[in-house]
Amino acid sequence: MIEICNEVISSRSAYESVQPRRCQMPKGHSRKHSEFHYLDHLRIEQKSVAEKIKRDSTMTTGAAWKSEEAGPNRILRWVMLLSDTELTRYNIRMENLKPQVVAKLREKAATYDNCMSVARKLTWLVYQMEDAPRPPQEVQEYLEGFFGEMKWGNTTCIICKEKLNFALFSKAQRGKAEIETGHISPREHNAENVGFAHRECNIAQGNKTIQEFYNWIRGIIQRVGLF
Amino acid sequence: MIEICNEVISSRSAYESVQPRRCQMPKGHSRKHSEFHYLDHLRIEQKSVAEKIKRDSTMTTGAAWKSEEAGPNRILRWVMLLSDTELTRYNIRMENLKPQVVAKLREKAATYDNCMSVARKLTWLVYQMEDAPRPPQEVQEYLEGFFGEMKWGNTTCIICKEKLNFALFSKAQRGKAEIETGHISPREHNAENVGFAHRECNIAQGNKTIQEFYNWIRGIIQRVGLF
Repeated sequence: MIEICNEVISSRSAYESVQPRRCQMPKGHSRKHSEFHYLDHLRIEQKSVAEKIKRDSTMTTGAAWKSEEAGPNRILRWVMLLSDTELTRYNIRMENLKPQVVAKLREKAATYDNCMSVARKLTWLVYQMEDAPRPPQEVQEYLEGFFGEMKWGNTTCIICKEKLNFALFSKAQRGKAEIETGHISPREHNAENVGFAHRECNIAQGNKTIQEFYNWIRGIIQRVGLF
Repeated sequence: MIEICNEVISSRSAYESVQPRRCQMPKGHSRKHSEFHYLDHLRIEQKSVAEKIKRDSTMTTGAAWKSEEAGPNRILRWVMLLSDTELTRYNIRMENLKPQVVAKLREKAATYDNCMSVARKLTWLVYQMEDAPRPPQEVQEYLEGFFGEMKWGNTTCIICKEKLNFALFSKAQRGKAEIETGHISPREHNAENVGFAHRECNIAQGNKTIQEFYNWIRGIIQRVGLF
C-alpha cells in the first residue's frame, strides 16, 4: 500500500473545521499538494466522469430538489457523522427533516479516509472499463499501489456481472445516467464495498445487499419454474 | 360476461366532454346508476384500498410534484388519448413539458372501457388476498361474472408470485405503500395485463415486461453461478 502525503490542504469549505482536506499524493512527492491529483487526466478525457467519481465518493445523495423538508440536496458524507447537535452549528437542523430523509442521509455517512479510498477505487475501475482511455503511467502505478494490477476490459457491473463500457457514461435515458456507483451492501461506503453498476441493476437491487438480491431473484426464478 | 347498464352519469368533471362516465351496474339494475358500485363495500372496510383501485385504474401517475415543467400530477388515462392540439382545449400544453415527461404520460393512456375493466379486475384480486374481507354476495357475483370464480388466498404478486396479504396495504416504508398496481407489460393498461405487485418487485421490473424481467434475472443468476 502506497503511503500518502497527508498534509492538510486549506479549503474555503464551511466544513473545514469538521474535517480538513488532506493531500492524497504519494509521500515525498515534489508537486503541489492535491486531494484528487489522480483524477486530473480523466478530467481532461471526460470531465463528467471525473466529477462523478469525486461527487459519488464524497457526497451523500440528497433529495431530488431542495426544500426545508427534504433536507440538503447533497452534503459531504463525513459531515453526516456529526450528531444532530453538532450539525446545528452548520445550520443543518435534522429535527426539521422527515424521518425517512434523516435515515437516508445518515446511512450515507462515511469517514473522510473511506471516501478518499472509494474515489481511488472507482478511478481504478473506470480505467479498466472497455473503451476507457489509458491512464498516464504515474496514475496507473498510484492506483495499482492500492488495488493491484489493472487489466483493461475487466470492470463489470457489480450486480449483473456484465462488462461495463466506458461509453455508457455518456448515455442517458430519461435524463438519468446509465452507470451509477453501486454498493455490495448499500450501507457501507468503503473501497471493498463499492463499484459501478448499471442504473437498472442498481435500482433493482434497492436497499438489499447484493447477496440478498441474488437470493431474492433466485427465489423468483424457482417459483416461476425457469430453472 | 355480465352486460352492463352503460347509462351516462353526468359528472362535474372538466373532462366530461372527452368521455362521459357510464353506469357499470348490471343491465336492468333497480338502484341508482353508479360507476363503482362494487367498491362500496371495500370503501367501508378500508377506504384507502378502494380509492387506490379507482385511482390506479383511471389516472396516470404523474410527476412527484406539480410544476409547469413536470406536467400535471395525475390525469385521467383516457384524456391522454387526445392529440396535443385537442389537449390545449383543456389547458394542457404538452409542448411545454420535457420529452421524458410526455413519454411517461402518453404511455399511461388507456380507453375508458379498459380502465373500468382494470378497476373490476383489481377489486376481484383484492378480495382473493389472504386476510382480505369477504365481499357481499352481490359484489362477488358481479366480479365473478367478468373474471371467473374467486378463491380466497389465491392472489399473488404478478412478479415474484408470492402470496399477497391484504394487510400489506396498510404497511408503508419511507412513506411508500408496500403494494402497487403492476403491469405484465408496462405499456398496456387492460384487465389481462394488470395485477398487484410488491413495491420492490415493481421497481425491480422497471420498464421491462415481466418475461423480459425473468430472462434478465435468470441471466444474472447464471452469470454469478447460482444455478
